[in-house]
Amino acid sequence: MNHTRLFENIVEKSSFLCVGLDSEIEKIPSFLLKGRDPQFEFNKRIIDATHKYAVAYKPNVAFYECYGAKGWTSLESTVRYIKDNYPEIFLIADAKRGDIGNTSKMYAKAFLENMPFDAITVAPYMGEDSVTPFLSYNEKWVILLALTSNKGADDFQYHNEDGIKLFERVLSVSQKWGNVNNMMYVIGATHAEMLKEIRQLVPEHFLLVPGVGAQGGSLEEVAKYGLNSKCGLLVNSSRGIIFADNSKNFDKVASEKAQEIQVEMEKYLRKHKLI
Amino acid sequence: MNHTRLFENIVEKSSFLCVGLDSEIEKIPSFLLKGRDPQFEFNKRIIDATHKYAVAYKPNVAFYECYGAKGWTSLESTVRYIKDNYPEIFLIADAKRGDIGNTSKMYAKAFLENMPFDAITVAPYMGEDSVTPFLSYNEKWVILLALTSNKGADDFQYHNEDGIKLFERVLSVSQKWGNVNNMMYVIGATHAEMLKEIRQLVPEHFLLVPGVGAQGGSLEEVAKYGLNSKCGLLVNSSRGIIFADNSKNFDKVASEKAQEIQVEMEKYLRKHKLI
Repeated sequence: MNHTRLFENIVEKSSFLCVGLDSEIEKIPSFLLKGRDPQFEFNKRIIDATHKYAVAYKPNVAFYECYGAKGWTSLESTVRYIKDNYPEIFLIADAKRGDIGNTSKMYAKAFLENMPFDAITVAPYMGEDSVTPFLSYNEKWVILLALTSNKGADDFQYHNEDGIKLFERVLSVSQKWGNVNNMMYVIGATHAEMLKEIRQLVPEHFLLVPGVGAQGGSLEEVAKYGLNSKCGLLVNSSRGIIFADNSKNFDKVASEKAQEIQVEMEKYLRKHKLI
Repeated sequence: MNHTRLFENIVEKSSFLCVGLDSEIEKIPSFLLKGRDPQFEFNKRIIDATHKYAVAYKPNVAFYECYGAKGWTSLESTVRYIKDNYPEIFLIADAKRGDIGNTSKMYAKAFLENMPFDAITVAPYMGEDSVTPFLSYNEKWVILLALTSNKGADDFQYHNEDGIKLFERVLSVSQKWGNVNNMMYVIGATHAEMLKEIRQLVPEHFLLVPGVGAQGGSLEEVAKYGLNSKCGLLVNSSRGIIFADNSKNFDKVASEKAQEIQVEMEKYLRKHKLI
């Protein structure tokens, strides 16, 4: 999916919501566990209930990989279901991969070729040749970790050489590898006030922002400092939507939670004259 | 597996060789492709032919993941085959994972609980809480990326704050998270001369050294600067062994290549009075 189409979807749905499909089987409603593929069945119902309010879905691969080959089948079924039924959705593999060139190429094949993902999150530590294999696909995206939302972000991401922090170096150096049409960045919402400075380094790129809700980030602040002329934000919510309820009505409640966020997003999009 | 047992195996086999099972289907001998699970069949024959000369095997997960659920089944079959038949082998998942705490926990479950791996490679960018979930298993190991063997290592790993390079900070900070009994480091062989300084920061830890052979590193230099009083090295070779030949005799040739390396390793172990 290209940059223009993504922005069109955002305008159409008045939303820049990404729903995180971190569908841990231990947390899904128990009545679903009797089925053949409870994880896919759960995702299917979440997707059917929330797609009107979301422009992107982001399964975190760990929550599938931990069930082995069976989990991979559930992941594949989920992404194919989305692409077949809601082709406007931007599909992110939250995989945080990255390896030497010929190996990253295999990861790229796994997610961008064999599965219909539009984007994959990539860890920057190993540098250029670990990232560029993911950039060789037309209309596919790398979402590079820059400043993450967890406590451990403090350990290395602020390592400071001559006033330039590591995450800032990641933002500036990686712009030589890709461009606004094939690269986004992960910027945790727990650092919303820093989005102001970050926007000086990457004014036009899309940012994928996790950490709103369960991890404590504020959507209002993220919108205030992060929105640009083409929206430029995908804000993720996982647990706050998909595990808001675990009764038979879980999908209805998920839909309400997603709509609540969409309504708030619509307000910020209007305020910034994007819709 | 604990540190003592690993060293005993090294002494017993006079080897610190790790065989990388980067078993890309496109590169395995064509006569194997007719079988039910060519990737597993290839690995099985490589393992049977080389186990006498190796103390560790390291499948890189990308080369399985790129075949989806089928690839995961081949990976699972491979690691179970090794544990069932050669229980002395140290089994490394070269996965380079790392995510926020509750997600890393799922990756740990995938590799250290649901599969019988002894160790997993982890990327350090997201810091402490992305790494510690892998350290909560008894006699299992994290192998943290420090200085990698690829060109892109130059992009961020040398980022220098007050004379301390990022990879050095990774080495020093992470020693608070684990210890010599549950943490190793990836140090690329293409930086063999740097092992001298690295050994001052991590004198007792095991180092996993890729990049000997195909990537140009010298085993002699790695041994010279890297060996410690309990060996402290696992040196990996992948393509130079497993794809040395692609005739019907591929396993015999792989065995010869592994033995060549083992014989050289034995020389260095003697020289350092470790055997």
